[in-house]
Amino acid sequence: MFETAELGRALASEEYKKVVPELRQELLEVQRQLLDNGSFQVILIFAGVDGAGKSEIVNLLNSWMDPRWLVTHAYGPPSDEESERPEYWRYWRDLPPKGQIGLLLSTWYSRPILDYVYGEHNLAKFDKRLDRITGMEKGLADNGALILKFWLHLDKESQQTRFKKLEQDPLNAWRVTDEDWKHWELYDGFMQAAEHTIRKTSTGEATWHIVEGGDLRYSSVTVAKTLCDSIRNRIEQLQRQVKQGDTQIASNPDTASDDDIAFDRQRCREVVRPEVATVLSALNNQLKLSKADYNQQLSSLQGEVNQLQHQAHERNISTLLVFEGADAAGKGGAIRRVISALDAKHYKVVPVAAPTDEERAQHYLWRFWRHLPRAGRLTLFDRSWYGRVLVERVEGFASEQEWRRAYREINDFEEQLAEHDILVIKYWLHITPEEQLARFDARAETPYKQWKLTDEDWRNRNKWADYELAVHDMVERTSTSLAPWTLVEANDKRYARIKVLKTLQDRLQQKLTTGS
Amino acid sequence: MFETAELGRALASEEYKKVVPELRQELLEVQRQLLDNGSFQVILIFAGVDGAGKSEIVNLLNSWMDPRWLVTHAYGPPSDEESERPEYWRYWRDLPPKGQIGLLLSTWYSRPILDYVYGEHNLAKFDKRLDRITGMEKGLADNGALILKFWLHLDKESQQTRFKKLEQDPLNAWRVTDEDWKHWELYDGFMQAAEHTIRKTSTGEATWHIVEGGDLRYSSVTVAKTLCDSIRNRIEQLQRQVKQGDTQIASNPDTASDDDIAFDRQRCREVVRPEVATVLSALNNQLKLSKADYNQQLSSLQGEVNQLQHQAHERNISTLLVFEGADAAGKGGAIRRVISALDAKHYKVVPVAAPTDEERAQHYLWRFWRHLPRAGRLTLFDRSWYGRVLVERVEGFASEQEWRRAYREINDFEEQLAEHDILVIKYWLHITPEEQLARFDARAETPYKQWKLTDEDWRNRNKWADYELAVHDMVERTSTSLAPWTLVEANDKRYARIKVLKTLQDRLQQKLTTGS
Repeated sequence: MFETAELGRALASEEYKKVVPELRQELLEVQRQLLDNGSFQVILIFAGVDGAGKSEIVNLLNSWMDPRWLVTHAYGPPSDEESERPEYWRYWRDLPPKGQIGLLLSTWYSRPILDYVYGEHNLAKFDKRLDRITGMEKGLADNGALILKFWLHLDKESQQTRFKKLEQDPLNAWRVTDEDWKHWELYDGFMQAAEHTIRKTSTGEATWHIVEGGDLRYSSVTVAKTLCDSIRNRIEQLQRQVKQGDTQIASNPDTASDDDIAFDRQRCREVVRPEVATVLSALNNQLKLSKADYNQQLSSLQGEVNQLQHQAHERNISTLLVFEGADAAGKGGAIRRVISALDAKHYKVVPVAAPTDEERAQHYLWRFWRHLPRAGRLTLFDRSWYGRVLVERVEGFASEQEWRRAYREINDFEEQLAEHDILVIKYWLHITPEEQLARFDARAETPYKQWKLTDEDWRNRNKWADYELAVHDMVERTSTSLAPWTLVEANDKRYARIKVLKTLQDRLQQKLTTGS
Repeated sequence: MFETAELGRALASEEYKKVVPELRQELLEVQRQLLDNGSFQVILIFAGVDGAGKSEIVNLLNSWMDPRWLVTHAYGPPSDEESERPEYWRYWRDLPPKGQIGLLLSTWYSRPILDYVYGEHNLAKFDKRLDRITGMEKGLADNGALILKFWLHLDKESQQTRFKKLEQDPLNAWRVTDEDWKHWELYDGFMQAAEHTIRKTSTGEATWHIVEGGDLRYSSVTVAKTLCDSIRNRIEQLQRQVKQGDTQIASNPDTASDDDIAFDRQRCREVVRPEVATVLSALNNQLKLSKADYNQQLSSLQGEVNQLQHQAHERNISTLLVFEGADAAGKGGAIRRVISALDAKHYKVVPVAAPTDEERAQHYLWRFWRHLPRAGRLTLFDRSWYGRVLVERVEGFASEQEWRRAYREINDFEEQLAEHDILVIKYWLHITPEEQLARFDARAETPYKQWKLTDEDWRNRNKWADYELAVHDMVERTSTSLAPWTLVEANDKRYARIKVLKTLQDRLQQKLTTGS
């Protein structure tokens, strides 16, 4: 079964560099289409030989795609709340909603295979568990989910080579455990179980893709292409069904004419800044980094952050990162550079958009409490509870009394986090109105970025002074010693990203050495 | 501080019997008003002396009120998922949504007081924790929540008497633990801490009500009356604010004239039954119980169920109860009789209405998975996943393919529950169309029951045959040995409630003795 995955396929570095930018653009586009379509979710399951690069591929996909519509889950031993429910409870709990993509590592295939190989070798019991899996997958697929399963393969010799190589690299040595070597000795039995599993669980609804795992460039590009193609195909198929069922072509629901928009946007090109000095007016907007400096610092910082986070994970220290900033300030790009440095199993990105109806029925902080990370993990908030004193204040969604008392409520909240030994890092990414205008214009000209730019973004420019004053008050009132704000000069994206990573490195370092 | 709660106040049995029916009606009415208003939630906090009847009051409130808009939470030692987050995470997670009432036992006051009395006696630390509490309560109150705090008091001698009395009663002996006696010996220190706590945390937003705990009739009625009055006052206050802000009186939004409704309802009085025999047509609709038999069996069954559930809790056996039945079949009444037998800390009632938007973005079983009980507890579903093969089938909300495959999906789901040692008990409460008509007419005539009756209920009668066939198929396809259906002849409410309790008793008994 695995012969075709032992051909030594690889992708040369130049080829990879050529392919990846296009692929990333395509990934972002299909993510967008999936979100717009909204009628199904995509579930990627990664399984296979240890050392064949499953986590690395998941990390790459996380850094290539829009983290706001992507969830990653990796399963270790169950928590007590989990073991009090049926085995599949935690998988159900974590399923991505429609319109989004879930990347699952060590999921429902993991234990059945390991139990069979290292346990009692009971085939009847093994088959029963595989039946449960096909039932689960069929149920999800029947209800619309697109399920893609990737088996990452390595031959026995390559696995050994890979482990040895990882062990020699101080940045990656932690990836190879004693258990990995134990598994390696049982390679043949493991492959037999794998073959049985793949044969039994390759169904019409959820087929396995066997991917050669020797070369990360090859395997990651293969997985990403399969993902793009599968989503595209599914959406086209759904569109054909709609057309067949309904021959009428819907008229364009967009009622605003192009002229209206042009007028509106034109009015928003000029911006009034506040009459008083603010914490933002003191920033040096000229700071920048050359591409060479940036590339060098980026990879060294990412390596160090990776190691520090690994230590933090072992010591059960959790981190919250808050990203705030004007539209187009580069929050998403900065988040992607941070998560590239992390193990995908350790973090979650929470995009803060309009509250769901369950959230609306609660105190405004409730929806942030629910996303606090478990011990040793990170949550990255793309916008946050500070919306209360920014957009809600400026737009009048919160009364003056409400946003004024929010400073205290927020400080109380963050104090509780800090007391629980959670590291709280808050970034305000600052750009000038001129830089924002240039970025809006660039977005308007780039087809695959146009969706990012809404009329709302343009209109917000009219309130630049109000926002800047709100930011000033926010920093003044909520920059505490337990949870200080970091103001990031973000007119130059490279400078901003490095400052974000450097701050994370410093704070992690400090936390690990001094405990605060 | 507690002198006024040591007056030996009690309510005579006759007085209690006179007051309670009115009080229950009033509680249901304010619950309804709260739900309709929808702009705030009510949080009841119970604290006080052990043995002063906190749990008993919470149990009574649960049996008096509509369990669909009521949540009860009691806090023990934190689970590992909970201890990985700040102390208050679990309280945030459990807050009732707006329009509903939450009853909280052993909540944020518990540990600070115990740690102070039995621990290091550090007043500065104690005060800091009390500050956190006032901050939490202020935050909730500022955002609209109505917070009512009840301190149940007993003097030292009465506490001793109470413990001894409980210990002599085999049904209640488990309520008194060695820890209770240890606390009793430290009574004076405990009262000193209590006084300090009450003084520090009685704020304008959340004041303490000290209630004498010697007589359950007195204390439960006092708490219930305070609850009714407080909700009424708050709603009146909100209405005054609205009137002051907007002098225009809104016109009646109900556009359907009385004639329309009368006509519609008239058409629905006659019902067509299925042409074929169903599992329901075989039931004996004449079964009934006299009031005397009912009362006798009810209290003996509730006592036995209570003891069995206590054993099940100790052995970590969880139970799911599913209540299905036509409109007005008596599901709510049966659920209330079951929960009267249970410890309020052990169960949760989940009313299944329209899905929330988070639920809509998932597989239809997702919203049931999320409510599975922790080990040793019960979840009661007022309607359930069977909606897929009942209302969704009959109304065409699910395609034929969808509801047909749901039988298998549901059996798979229940198999996983049973394998995890969860007891699954499913009731279909059957009434005849004639009995339903009589109950609808009675509801229409009783002012405080009118809200229960909607035009939808009347219209459903036109589809009686379709529903009956759907029930027949459902029972045929999903009554498995692991999770059998119990058909309950429900034309007589007394007979139905006893059969529901008897079934629960038998199944618990069987589970505890044979393990299945």
